[in-house]
Amino acid sequence: MPRYDLSLPELRDYRPIVAEPDDFDEFWEDTLADARRFPDELRLTRVDSPLSQVEVYDMTFNGFAGQPVRAWFLVPAGTTGPLPAVVEYNGYGGGRGLPHENLAWVTAGYAYLFMDTRGQGSVWGSGGETPDPNGTGPSAPGFVTRGIERPHDYYYRRLFTDAARAIDAVRTLDRVDPTRVAVCGGSQGGGIALAAAGLSEGLIGVMPEVPFLCHFERAIEITDGDPYQEIVRYLSVHRDLVDQTFTTLSYFDGVNFAKRATAPALFSVALMDPVCPPSTVFAALNHYAGEADIEVYPFNQHEGGSGHHWLRQAAWLEERIL
Amino acid sequence: MPRYDLSLPELRDYRPIVAEPDDFDEFWEDTLADARRFPDELRLTRVDSPLSQVEVYDMTFNGFAGQPVRAWFLVPAGTTGPLPAVVEYNGYGGGRGLPHENLAWVTAGYAYLFMDTRGQGSVWGSGGETPDPNGTGPSAPGFVTRGIERPHDYYYRRLFTDAARAIDAVRTLDRVDPTRVAVCGGSQGGGIALAAAGLSEGLIGVMPEVPFLCHFERAIEITDGDPYQEIVRYLSVHRDLVDQTFTTLSYFDGVNFAKRATAPALFSVALMDPVCPPSTVFAALNHYAGEADIEVYPFNQHEGGSGHHWLRQAAWLEERIL
Amino acid sequence: MPRYDLSLPELRDYRPIVAEPDDFDEFWEDTLADARRFPDELRLTRVDSPLSQVEVYDMTFNGFAGQPVRAWFLVPAGTTGPLPAVVEYNGYGGGRGLPHENLAWVTAGYAYLFMDTRGQGSVWGSGGETPDPNGTGPSAPGFVTRGIERPHDYYYRRLFTDAARAIDAVRTLDRVDPTRVAVCGGSQGGGIALAAAGLSEGLIGVMPEVPFLCHFERAIEITDGDPYQEIVRYLSVHRDLVDQTFTTLSYFDGVNFAKRATAPALFSVALMDPVCPPSTVFAALNHYAGEADIEVYPFNQHEGGSGHHWLRQAAWLEERIL
Amino acid sequence: MPRYDLSLPELRDYRPIVAEPDDFDEFWEDTLADARRFPDELRLTRVDSPLSQVEVYDMTFNGFAGQPVRAWFLVPAGTTGPLPAVVEYNGYGGGRGLPHENLAWVTAGYAYLFMDTRGQGSVWGSGGETPDPNGTGPSAPGFVTRGIERPHDYYYRRLFTDAARAIDAVRTLDRVDPTRVAVCGGSQGGGIALAAAGLSEGLIGVMPEVPFLCHFERAIEITDGDPYQEIVRYLSVHRDLVDQTFTTLSYFDGVNFAKRATAPALFSVALMDPVCPPSTVFAALNHYAGEADIEVYPFNQHEGGSGHHWLRQAAWLEERIL
Amino acid sequence: MPRYDLSLPELRDYRPIVAEPDDFDEFWEDTLADARRFPDELRLTRVDSPLSQVEVYDMTFNGFAGQPVRAWFLVPAGTTGPLPAVVEYNGYGGGRGLPHENLAWVTAGYAYLFMDTRGQGSVWGSGGETPDPNGTGPSAPGFVTRGIERPHDYYYRRLFTDAARAIDAVRTLDRVDPTRVAVCGGSQGGGIALAAAGLSEGLIGVMPEVPFLCHFERAIEITDGDPYQEIVRYLSVHRDLVDQTFTTLSYFDGVNFAKRATAPALFSVALMDPVCPPSTVFAALNHYAGEADIEVYPFNQHEGGSGHHWLRQAAWLEERIL
Amino acid sequence: MPRYDLSLPELRDYRPIVAEPDDFDEFWEDTLADARRFPDELRLTRVDSPLSQVEVYDMTFNGFAGQPVRAWFLVPAGTTGPLPAVVEYNGYGGGRGLPHENLAWVTAGYAYLFMDTRGQGSVWGSGGETPDPNGTGPSAPGFVTRGIERPHDYYYRRLFTDAARAIDAVRTLDRVDPTRVAVCGGSQGGGIALAAAGLSEGLIGVMPEVPFLCHFERAIEITDGDPYQEIVRYLSVHRDLVDQTFTTLSYFDGVNFAKRATAPALFSVALMDPVCPPSTVFAALNHYAGEADIEVYPFNQHEGGSGHHWLRQAAWLEERIL
Repeated sequence: MPRYDLSLPELRDYRPIVAEPDDFDEFWEDTLADARRFPDELRLTRVDSPLSQVEVYDMTFNGFAGQPVRAWFLVPAGTTGPLPAVVEYNGYGGGRGLPHENLAWVTAGYAYLFMDTRGQGSVWGSGGETPDPNGTGPSAPGFVTRGIERPHDYYYRRLFTDAARAIDAVRTLDRVDPTRVAVCGGSQGGGIALAAAGLSEGLIGVMPEVPFLCHFERAIEITDGDPYQEIVRYLSVHRDLVDQTFTTLSYFDGVNFAKRATAPALFSVALMDPVCPPSTVFAALNHYAGEADIEVYPFNQHEGGSGHHWLRQAAWLEERIL
Repeated sequence: MPRYDLSLPELRDYRPIVAEPDDFDEFWEDTLADARRFPDELRLTRVDSPLSQVEVYDMTFNGFAGQPVRAWFLVPAGTTGPLPAVVEYNGYGGGRGLPHENLAWVTAGYAYLFMDTRGQGSVWGSGGETPDPNGTGPSAPGFVTRGIERPHDYYYRRLFTDAARAIDAVRTLDRVDPTRVAVCGGSQGGGIALAAAGLSEGLIGVMPEVPFLCHFERAIEITDGDPYQEIVRYLSVHRDLVDQTFTTLSYFDGVNFAKRATAPALFSVALMDPVCPPSTVFAALNHYAGEADIEVYPFNQHEGGSGHHWLRQAAWLEERIL
Repeated sequence: MPRYDLSLPELRDYRPIVAEPDDFDEFWEDTLADARRFPDELRLTRVDSPLSQVEVYDMTFNGFAGQPVRAWFLVPAGTTGPLPAVVEYNGYGGGRGLPHENLAWVTAGYAYLFMDTRGQGSVWGSGGETPDPNGTGPSAPGFVTRGIERPHDYYYRRLFTDAARAIDAVRTLDRVDPTRVAVCGGSQGGGIALAAAGLSEGLIGVMPEVPFLCHFERAIEITDGDPYQEIVRYLSVHRDLVDQTFTTLSYFDGVNFAKRATAPALFSVALMDPVCPPSTVFAALNHYAGEADIEVYPFNQHEGGSGHHWLRQAAWLEERIL
Repeated sequence: MPRYDLSLPELRDYRPIVAEPDDFDEFWEDTLADARRFPDELRLTRVDSPLSQVEVYDMTFNGFAGQPVRAWFLVPAGTTGPLPAVVEYNGYGGGRGLPHENLAWVTAGYAYLFMDTRGQGSVWGSGGETPDPNGTGPSAPGFVTRGIERPHDYYYRRLFTDAARAIDAVRTLDRVDPTRVAVCGGSQGGGIALAAAGLSEGLIGVMPEVPFLCHFERAIEITDGDPYQEIVRYLSVHRDLVDQTFTTLSYFDGVNFAKRATAPALFSVALMDPVCPPSTVFAALNHYAGEADIEVYPFNQHEGGSGHHWLRQAAWLEERIL
Repeated sequence: MPRYDLSLPELRDYRPIVAEPDDFDEFWEDTLADARRFPDELRLTRVDSPLSQVEVYDMTFNGFAGQPVRAWFLVPAGTTGPLPAVVEYNGYGGGRGLPHENLAWVTAGYAYLFMDTRGQGSVWGSGGETPDPNGTGPSAPGFVTRGIERPHDYYYRRLFTDAARAIDAVRTLDRVDPTRVAVCGGSQGGGIALAAAGLSEGLIGVMPEVPFLCHFERAIEITDGDPYQEIVRYLSVHRDLVDQTFTTLSYFDGVNFAKRATAPALFSVALMDPVCPPSTVFAALNHYAGEADIEVYPFNQHEGGSGHHWLRQAAWLEERIL
Repeated sequence: MPRYDLSLPELRDYRPIVAEPDDFDEFWEDTLADARRFPDELRLTRVDSPLSQVEVYDMTFNGFAGQPVRAWFLVPAGTTGPLPAVVEYNGYGGGRGLPHENLAWVTAGYAYLFMDTRGQGSVWGSGGETPDPNGTGPSAPGFVTRGIERPHDYYYRRLFTDAARAIDAVRTLDRVDPTRVAVCGGSQGGGIALAAAGLSEGLIGVMPEVPFLCHFERAIEITDGDPYQEIVRYLSVHRDLVDQTFTTLSYFDGVNFAKRATAPALFSVALMDPVCPPSTVFAALNHYAGEADIEVYPFNQHEGGSGHHWLRQAAWLEERIL
């Protein structure tokens, strides 16, 4: 059935109780403090590129545990002063790819950082270059169960920290106005953007599209699509680790980051999305602590609003940077 | 089996005999002459867009039978003089979409025209806006069998003419250097680019990626993927129209356009491509009348080289425009 | 889940509000009046056939805009006087095929007309021969989105008019008793039969089997099967045309024809039908203006009652023609 | 790959060695002799039917071991003298269904017998009514492995005997000219027709369409479709019964019946048929002892020529009955 | 959707009314009485096996109608006196396979009988050796519809009788303590175990895992998986046999056996089981006449608790045999 | 097509050239030397288990880089002296599971070690407990591409070392006769067994069933199944790392281990195996340096000989331990 979740009126009111560990804030404060012990220093290397209208930089910054994380940083050629900036995180399985693959924001006049996703970048697209140097306990293929035995070891602890550190890093650049930084991303990128919004101060905008990584307990019961099903497969084998697994996930649930995020937000959701169920997106939206709006795509699956939604985002963000 | 076609060494030597009607040239000369009776005039409307670094125009030109065909035309903001231009055609089922979705060539400094595909643009992407005002005999869903009863009525007669007329049109523009126009496209777009190369004079480059619409008789016997299978489904019903159908297709076979194309060409092919079998691509390459090179992607399916291949194209084309 | 729609008791009571345009009647009156400006004349050509017990005629009548529409017309050999007649419309993708493929009604003693479906007849079966000489805006593969931008241009405006004109035509024949004409069809054919019932006067019976083209807004939300999903795919691309699309469809909804149909009707429905959801069939039944009965097949999918249901229909119709 | 078997020229020459047991003829002579110990007597019950142009009889005759087998027997209403007759066998999983479902031959003026298939008739269509009162050793779902441990117990020993006895029975009827009886059938029905042709004398025509049950050893290695795969699944479990299984099958291979059949034959084959591989059909054709022709459908799957092929058969048979 | 049935709290309370024929007890008393007219005698043949730590016997006992049924009987080598025994029945399509494939119970110190399943054993695993010498009316592939026209002829009448007779037989053995016999099995084996529990006296434990064959009317409406769908396919053809079919099934519904079973029971259920819907398992549990517990596996499909559940069973049974 | 690889006669002769790095031996000598710097010490903990006929031990030994690796170690209860031992490795995605799940070898009188697979054990079965504490560069889901950028970092360097160290460890145990140790495993376990055979001295038997990880370059071109396709997906993204990837794999190819293995071997292969193509198994067999035999299962897929093959192995091994 295309429509398998709540109806739109029900979704607008859906504000479920989502488990939150007592030490959620402490956990993340400690994690970020550890990461921030490493300097904000970064390396920017100008890349020779056919893109004559844009300056392209290969960037490396200090992510989780100071581990090097790659990104592309682009600014419009011929500009000099600080610009408002957009930081984007990628969907599941993708890496930073190639600089010419994401040109809309820089062509719209923004400084633009597209962060690589550690360990990913080998499933689709043009690749990634950031390793994930941390091991894992028994895990199912995919990244969602890597280190899921303990919040401390969970893969997304490292990735969300990278995301927060990417914001720190971009703010140190001459070409960026540190007071006007927004974050965005679709699917996993949307989940990361939500986490970054909960972990960072002073963002001017947060734009999660059809975000993944929200309201896990419901998600894994109502969709049979990956990557949420990676958790189901893991639990189908580790029948005795159900509680422990949900405890880990509670430290990473987009809903809990939403409760702490105060920057203005523009979400999107697709009502026929078999990957990120609508109710899990609304759960994050309806718990969002700041001002938040959502664009609803009633007949789309996980592609959501795609190019149409970027126009909506560009208009929305333009109002915020003035 | 991932590798289901000839081996790479066999492919490099594969130069099959492909049926060619005696009046192929006459058919196309008449067709283009009819179309060119309509003026080259076009409408360019500057579009209000968030893309501050680019001038975006909504363009309408006279295509087949003078019917209006839409396109996006982009030039880098701040440029004035004539630029080398790239004309791109789209894959099967897609339309011109939105201007910010194809920014690589303009960011590389080219004038860029992305042509809408008549009647298409409703299967994926962000839509199209060009109708196909011509009817059809009994046809299978899809566009490959529309009007296939007679070469005169076949859908691709109209679309290939649009493609040739797009080149005519872009050459009339102030911002374009008419002696430095290249064409490109992937899949159906690659097939259209080949046709345009066979029908137009003086192109500086032709870049068909994993082209569709080549060597039909072999294609429909060795792939079970759409859209080639649309022809098989049609023939499975119209058991008595096999010869007539192949006669129609012979007027539209990329191999026959390749035999007439003299502009330098850069092809791509993917050896695990289930949609456009490698041997059908090499059939066109090995019959190509001009200088032609090919980039082989041994472990890719129909996505071919994607972003990596664009870098290859950009370097290749840069050498040709100097 | 096999049973994915309402329960049978709920279905029996299901009488949803379905949007109806104010000018629905005017739209169809104008459409039919335009078509009826062309004469009722038709061509009947006796076909040489192995079917010695039946007279087979290849018929051409004036359909929408006077365009020629083909049909097979059969009467039992050896009969002379006027007979009660059955007019049948075909399912999606099929054409009129070959005369020996539908012999039950004529063998039961009826004059029988099997109408070709314009543009269709190339997906399954033995083919069709009626073109659809009208073009289309951007449309998804299939027929359901052809011309969907405007009620005036929509494919089913032409096809439903053909269907009403087929009744007009058959009534002009010597071998047919014009006061005893019934219509039938399965799936798309059932939807056409409903439309014909709403547009024609004086039918003695209407027999829609598992009808398609009813209660679109619900249908496209609860089934993931084609052809209803063609609309979803169209809307997933044309995100800005949702309202316009539903407006067009409201002129063609079987429920709105049912509200106007007064001839006795025998419906069928299959409770595990993934193509035409049971609730959309009951929506038409429960709004039907005339006397209407339904046969429920609890464990069937879209094949419904098939041969068993024909026996039911034959008995039901026999009572009406006496 | 649509074309997965030999090329058409290779098929035309394909005449493989197929294992044949020394006592093949003895086995079948004994089997038929046993069956013929039961009288040819049969029961014919006129059925009340809406089919006023046809006399419909529910027939029961003595099949294998004298077990009762059902059939429909139809003659054109109003005829009296003996007519040429067609006996048809059904495809896998189907039963005799309902009398109005197969009207082409009777409408063409033949007496027509459609035999029920023992134990089958519960997978598609309108049902069957003939039990298979014999048990089985361990068998895979389906009928192809029932009793496959021994030729004596194999399901098709019973079914092929029923088929031969149906010919015996129809020849006893007043309304049938016993010198002008033809057999036909598609898929399993084609395999049964071949067997009947090898087991019966004096047929005027044999028309196997895309026949199943030929050249088993090749078939199960080159198609992954059912029902041939039922044998593969059986052998994948009974790893030690490979030789024994092929021994059993050699008594039932259509190729071995073809070697003994002398009545004129018209085969059909579809070159993209994934169910009955073309080479297995040509194996039977090229071993056929009598005059044999074949119609090739190059772009069809298992549906083969369908209605088009019936026209071909009707013309071919008409020549033979004159 | 992974969770497609009732919620866990609803399941715990789910106690539906399930049809029960008036003569249910009589039917089974007669059936067993008939079977018990044949002696309890059995044949035990010591098998030469690499399993030096176990005595392996090939056993044949008198099942339904005294027909020979095979089994493996294992006891730990070096033991002599009577042991508590476990009798296990197999899942759908499997046979008794090979003795070394089921060693857990004997390694835990039990005498162990693994019963072959008549006619099955050819779909997966290592085979079976027990024929089903009874014929069938028209049936769908699979075993669930064999003889379903009449309770008397239904396949499971024979199989359930075999199961009860296996208990009788094992109790006659020196090496078995007849007062300490338990039964178990998964899926079909669980359904058989339930039947055996309803038909036998004095069992010390009943352990149905994710049992099949319970609450048919609901099962076939909410799962689209085999084997329940075999019934749906049968009814989709035999549209007129719905009531008769459900009448037959009511004599074999696990719920009706549960109402009569008094031995302590340990069930298991998997909440994402697409084969045996959770509500059908709870229907049997909640009607169980004796003391009954259930282990719930929330994220498993039909594999249920597998090895983890065996540990649970072993502990549970150990308490009962002391 | 079920048979998609070479014919059996061709397979028996298939001895392809497989790339082998010059420093293959040095690479593995260094790797093992590093691992052997950690002591052979291991921990054995008697586990409380229902398996009264077997002593069950939870074992931890020092694997790659001295990292702790888990295993189950079982000996028949009541034995005391040193026994011949079998070491088994598991298939892809599985872990050591639970001790009662693999009882055949111990019941046949062997000491038995079942090694956990680092990082795996979360896809099927009852779980694993050994982490893989090493990170990875960008990798596709699954284990085959973890660390594939460099032979040094490749996942299978660690796993194969664990396998060799498991043999070292088991030989230190009192209950094991170190001169009579055999290794076995299916699929990935077969590939590991081959590697262990190439890396260890003095084994009495090597039993790879349908081994994975052999002749990679061919495997990934002719099967479209996982896990070989994980490499294809990786290369489809990392288009520039093809040579580097094959270089890494050449250090881990089962063919190169086979060239060095001298212990007697019994392989198995299934001719319809879509996961591990027959030719890749024969490539290893035909390069095997020691005496080697193979059992061919002509109609099986990846399940190969399963229980039947264990009987073959048990008989084969029994001859070797005398």
